[in-house]
Amino acid sequence: MSQPSVSQSSFRVIDLIRKKRDGGALSPAEIEYLVDGCTQGSIPDYQMAAWLMAVVLRGMTREETAALTHAMLHSGEVLDLGFLPARKVDKHSTGGVGDKTSLVLAPLVAVGGLVVPMISGRGLGHTGGTLDKLESIPGFRVGLTVPEFHRVLKASGCCMIGQTEKIAPADRKLYALRDVTGTVESPYLICASIMSKKLAEGTDALLLDVKTGSGAFMKKEEDAVFLAELMVETGERMGKQMAALITDMNQPLGRMVGNALEVQECIEVLHGGGPPDLRELCLELGAWMFYLGGASKTVTEGKQLAEQIIASGKAFDRFRQMVEFQGGDVRVIDDPARLPATKHRVEVASHLAGYVTAIACEQIGTACVILGGGRERKEDSVDPAVGIVVHKKLGDKVSIGEPLCTIHCHSDAQAAPAKQLLEESYEIMPTPPAHKQPLVHRVIYKGQF
Amino acid sequence: MSQPSVSQSSFRVIDLIRKKRDGGALSPAEIEYLVDGCTQGSIPDYQMAAWLMAVVLRGMTREETAALTHAMLHSGEVLDLGFLPARKVDKHSTGGVGDKTSLVLAPLVAVGGLVVPMISGRGLGHTGGTLDKLESIPGFRVGLTVPEFHRVLKASGCCMIGQTEKIAPADRKLYALRDVTGTVESPYLICASIMSKKLAEGTDALLLDVKTGSGAFMKKEEDAVFLAELMVETGERMGKQMAALITDMNQPLGRMVGNALEVQECIEVLHGGGPPDLRELCLELGAWMFYLGGASKTVTEGKQLAEQIIASGKAFDRFRQMVEFQGGDVRVIDDPARLPATKHRVEVASHLAGYVTAIACEQIGTACVILGGGRERKEDSVDPAVGIVVHKKLGDKVSIGEPLCTIHCHSDAQAAPAKQLLEESYEIMPTPPAHKQPLVHRVIYKGQF
Repeated sequence: MSQPSVSQSSFRVIDLIRKKRDGGALSPAEIEYLVDGCTQGSIPDYQMAAWLMAVVLRGMTREETAALTHAMLHSGEVLDLGFLPARKVDKHSTGGVGDKTSLVLAPLVAVGGLVVPMISGRGLGHTGGTLDKLESIPGFRVGLTVPEFHRVLKASGCCMIGQTEKIAPADRKLYALRDVTGTVESPYLICASIMSKKLAEGTDALLLDVKTGSGAFMKKEEDAVFLAELMVETGERMGKQMAALITDMNQPLGRMVGNALEVQECIEVLHGGGPPDLRELCLELGAWMFYLGGASKTVTEGKQLAEQIIASGKAFDRFRQMVEFQGGDVRVIDDPARLPATKHRVEVASHLAGYVTAIACEQIGTACVILGGGRERKEDSVDPAVGIVVHKKLGDKVSIGEPLCTIHCHSDAQAAPAKQLLEESYEIMPTPPAHKQPLVHRVIYKGQF
Repeated sequence: MSQPSVSQSSFRVIDLIRKKRDGGALSPAEIEYLVDGCTQGSIPDYQMAAWLMAVVLRGMTREETAALTHAMLHSGEVLDLGFLPARKVDKHSTGGVGDKTSLVLAPLVAVGGLVVPMISGRGLGHTGGTLDKLESIPGFRVGLTVPEFHRVLKASGCCMIGQTEKIAPADRKLYALRDVTGTVESPYLICASIMSKKLAEGTDALLLDVKTGSGAFMKKEEDAVFLAELMVETGERMGKQMAALITDMNQPLGRMVGNALEVQECIEVLHGGGPPDLRELCLELGAWMFYLGGASKTVTEGKQLAEQIIASGKAFDRFRQMVEFQGGDVRVIDDPARLPATKHRVEVASHLAGYVTAIACEQIGTACVILGGGRERKEDSVDPAVGIVVHKKLGDKVSIGEPLCTIHCHSDAQAAPAKQLLEESYEIMPTPPAHKQPLVHRVIYKGQF
């Protein structure tokens, strides 16, 4: 194994690894050299792996994080939506269980006069993915070309697609390496990965929904806040309007967990109904998107706008239009009973009487994965019909034998391991929980709102 | 990039990387799994690189260090010298400038009744290597087969060879990876690398000469002590008699730096002469080898034995015999003027009058490398004839124009960069240095001596 040759640069990879290992900060040119070399394959994986581990254990400065994001963003195509006169705004969630707000927000915010160019991901681990949810609508195409993406955005103000091969190839390369080298868990690397993809959309403003709690990747609120601040600052350094809401993920959001079930619940919200927590979070996030995109003068005004748009039915109409533009069967939007569904149901009943005081939310997500509704590995396929309907949430009173959840599945045998996991996920105590977590724990925004 | 398949084991490499990343300690079975997988190529380099960086930054327990050493040692052949009735003892130095004691010690200790099965290395960076020095004797073969090694050991009680392909292949693989991933500088990895090779010799006792100072790899004494204690404990866990001397490397040892020049100086010591510091260190190290090998009851007694053997001329005779057995031309041993030598000499004169208060010892070693007497890269060849004769050492008085060193070289032009480096290596002040460092800074030994 010899030191790879260095061309057109005075940097030596070994020196950059040592610098980070010893706690130093790399210059933007040094970081760009590493990212480019990794993407083009001129720097071997073993050197990148050593550097990544040094980053995980030594951290990065804000300047380094911004430089890494910048280099990864510019490793590929950056969309230019300048041909659309309206301001562009997007939302990114760090992932949770039953986290389905994107399907409501994209049409809602588009009706408010902004453009929402949403590039989303698939589910991995215990969390669901927007693309998987959309694909439970028969015919829905998430793999549009860039010209098609432009056309749908122009026609309906919103479009929801998957990451193209051309966007942030450095992230794909680095993420694959991080995944097998124990270097995923670094706020600096997570920030650069998320932001490099989101900023490639050509958005002017970006709202971050950073989840915290038992169903989130960041279980501790301080970790969520740290990541949120890092992403907000990184976006601001690149001239974007940024804010982050730290939101609760100590229980599933809404009542539905599973792809077609979640689409059904979003349609309820777009019709003005749906469970209170999901509805409320959609309005809060929508309000912030309006505010960041300049469609409202305050967040409060933004929230009023969001409520009016939902009530008018226009958000639903716009969702239906987007589905149609993207090849989806609108009959299932008009009649959600036509969405993929299982014939079998299994109830998960409570063995105790009392109050729900804690939910191991990650396990609820895992139960859905076990049913086939999510992915353990990237290459797994997803069953759109299976899922879990959550009847009892934090603080709810339950009696013995009362259903906590209902499993949508194909047979009792298939449901058994999920059922056991769900039973174990609920903590039921004789007295109600002392206090209820708010939906929005904290707002990270540099300014008044 | 997918997770490599795991066969015949329940370990997942990613879990072992994460465990170390998060500061945990791996079990011996987990470490063996990594070392075996790396050696056999079933674990990819990028995963090993991430784990190595985590080890550098998180450290290892004593148990882990011993387990790593054990796994690396048993990745290859471990010599069994049980057919020789005498106790076996060896010495290992962490490397320095003018550090040539092995050539004196092997025959000296063999005369005292012990067997010295010495497997040595080549020079790398600013330090010289025993094999390069021996090869300045025309005909000397360091690449003996194991049966030849046994035969020479049986006949003369000492033999000095290079590492065979079969010894500690895990170390060769890991070292090559560490070299390009910034993971060389870890006492735990250095300990396992040294000890896995040295214990493969089949020795009963091992004396460590851990250098500290401006010409050593460990510039700080605390780092040298840490490494020494780690190696002593690791050897003891494997049932070996162990001790370490922390010795001074703030100036070259003896007066000669360069391969043939150093052989010449060793012959002087074997004849009862030589510079006082080199002679003294050889006697100290020899005393400890006798003591650890059970040839003397105390170290003091061991030193008397070493002095007697040198004075008797038997150590020289044994060296001559070993050279003969290993194919070397003994005429150069009998008449060192026949050793490879340059025709040209360049004096490095002092520009100042005063006392030598500091020597940048690593630079003296680098000057020898620049002349061609050492290696910048493993594949470089070495010129046996070039080198530096050091006239002025720490505390010596110098007048303007008096020579500090003499460069043995082929031309003025060749000597120029080395000359400049040597001039810059000397600090000369009006008053002598406040105190003189002792030759042996400290002894690491668990017991009385």
